[in-house]
Amino acid sequence: MNIFEEYLEYVKREVGVTISTSPLIVRKYIEHLLKSEGKYIRAAAVLAAAQNKDGSIHHDAVIFAASIELLHLATLVHDDVMDDADTRRGVTTLHKKYGRKTAVICGDYLMAASMSLANKTEKKETYLGYSLPTYMEAIALGELNQHINNGNYKLKVKDYLSIIDGKTAKLFEAAMYSGVATSDDVREQQESYQTIGHAIGMIFQLLDDVMDFDDNESVAKKPVQSDFEQGVITLPLIHAFSTYPEALQKAEQHELTRKEVNQYVRNSKGVAITIAKAETYYATAKTAIENLDIIDTKREELMRILNLAMRK
Amino acid sequence: MNIFEEYLEYVKREVGVTISTSPLIVRKYIEHLLKSEGKYIRAAAVLAAAQNKDGSIHHDAVIFAASIELLHLATLVHDDVMDDADTRRGVTTLHKKYGRKTAVICGDYLMAASMSLANKTEKKETYLGYSLPTYMEAIALGELNQHINNGNYKLKVKDYLSIIDGKTAKLFEAAMYSGVATSDDVREQQESYQTIGHAIGMIFQLLDDVMDFDDNESVAKKPVQSDFEQGVITLPLIHAFSTYPEALQKAEQHELTRKEVNQYVRNSKGVAITIAKAETYYATAKTAIENLDIIDTKREELMRILNLAMRK
Repeated sequence: MNIFEEYLEYVKREVGVTISTSPLIVRKYIEHLLKSEGKYIRAAAVLAAAQNKDGSIHHDAVIFAASIELLHLATLVHDDVMDDADTRRGVTTLHKKYGRKTAVICGDYLMAASMSLANKTEKKETYLGYSLPTYMEAIALGELNQHINNGNYKLKVKDYLSIIDGKTAKLFEAAMYSGVATSDDVREQQESYQTIGHAIGMIFQLLDDVMDFDDNESVAKKPVQSDFEQGVITLPLIHAFSTYPEALQKAEQHELTRKEVNQYVRNSKGVAITIAKAETYYATAKTAIENLDIIDTKREELMRILNLAMRK
Repeated sequence: MNIFEEYLEYVKREVGVTISTSPLIVRKYIEHLLKSEGKYIRAAAVLAAAQNKDGSIHHDAVIFAASIELLHLATLVHDDVMDDADTRRGVTTLHKKYGRKTAVICGDYLMAASMSLANKTEKKETYLGYSLPTYMEAIALGELNQHINNGNYKLKVKDYLSIIDGKTAKLFEAAMYSGVATSDDVREQQESYQTIGHAIGMIFQLLDDVMDFDDNESVAKKPVQSDFEQGVITLPLIHAFSTYPEALQKAEQHELTRKEVNQYVRNSKGVAITIAKAETYYATAKTAIENLDIIDTKREELMRILNLAMRK
């Protein structure tokens, strides 16, 4: 077990502590939610950015990582309320199981717990420039933008990129930024970490959006409703619509079937173009990582996370 | 215009700045919400607690007051989503006008903006002990407790008090605590301010709960559905049920009409008993205010807010 794996266990424990010290009434809802816990990739990003020249990681990075994972959970809970989703990653959503009201408050609670935890670092005075709430604002804006553009089949590529920047990339940026803030890394390099975090987040969402149309992907874990059926406009769709005006016209008249959409996306090479876009972010991040003045294990870990996002 | 009124204008301006610097998409939702803005009593509490011995108030108190008002607005937005309320203080709710999804995200945005603003004080390092998120956690717990006890006609007085402590009193406590933290008041007195804030919040909610049954109150601004009809169990109701077991039995069989409830509350003197409970909090707060070593204008302003809550 390397230091990153070791510290990731501390992060999981810290998330567990927050939850187990919550009153019973919230615990049962939140524990249920944790059954669908993800890969802790955001926490891993914090830890990677946090490594010092001597290989050590400050415990404050564990606090920041746990707070970011809690914030991520909070957004998932509210997403479920908004999507009216029945399952997420194969598990019944809180919203479906306990009702909308409970889910709204549980999301609020998790959000508060996340912010509250972020205030509990040891070297507090060092992080006065890091504001998790500011990132939370950006995430809410991304979600709002996505919602407002629901069913907007004429969504422009730049607006789509701005939406996924807010709803996904900003939290990866926060992860990298908070991680490096705990480290001995020189201030001049900190912007590079934000670039890397942004790129990893963009790749993560672009490839997630591809899954909707990827024939090779197992259907087992796919949501009941696809993005398209929910009115969420993604890059493969934008390409299909700009290539085939008749597809756009049909969609606007609500006459486009799921099967036809898949065909249009395939013919327009929407998936390949989306993956190519992800590759450009990959190249940017890779260059930034190569140029950092850091120890080898840190560089390898940053590359591992980048490759994980890129599913390489 | 005294200093408190003058600074309250700064608070309103600060809230306005947060909103006017939000992107257009959130502005239109939030501006709509501001039409139903309240009396800024929480902000007034911050400013009262913030006054220094020389009569001045530090600008950081304005920041804290604005952040508390924004948090209050955020909870109102999410309350509306949960209540499925059509109007609040006579104005159509965001939820009804723009849909549930928008309201959930707008509430999240306001919450983030509130936390973010609270981080923008000048003497940051002085307030490391003040954590708005911790209060936000308590508020979410109060809301959750209320929701779980929806329709629980056997709710105990102490559980009711614990619910309103979370959902209402905690924010007044935060107001007093953050205000005094910006002042030159000695640390030994700070606990008294929390006591005063708690008492004011409790009075505020107790008298709000009385309105549901108060014959003298104008019906014009009452919500379409009363607390009772929404399953929210308040102190006048608890007294009616404990005095008349047949009322409890009827309620549990969903056979109790609104008219009958009013009659049972009247006969059990539920309203008078609730007002008497508020009076005990009033006495506690009054004694605490009298015992503070502060200048007269500060004491008068604290008493003014206490009387405002008590509707004296």
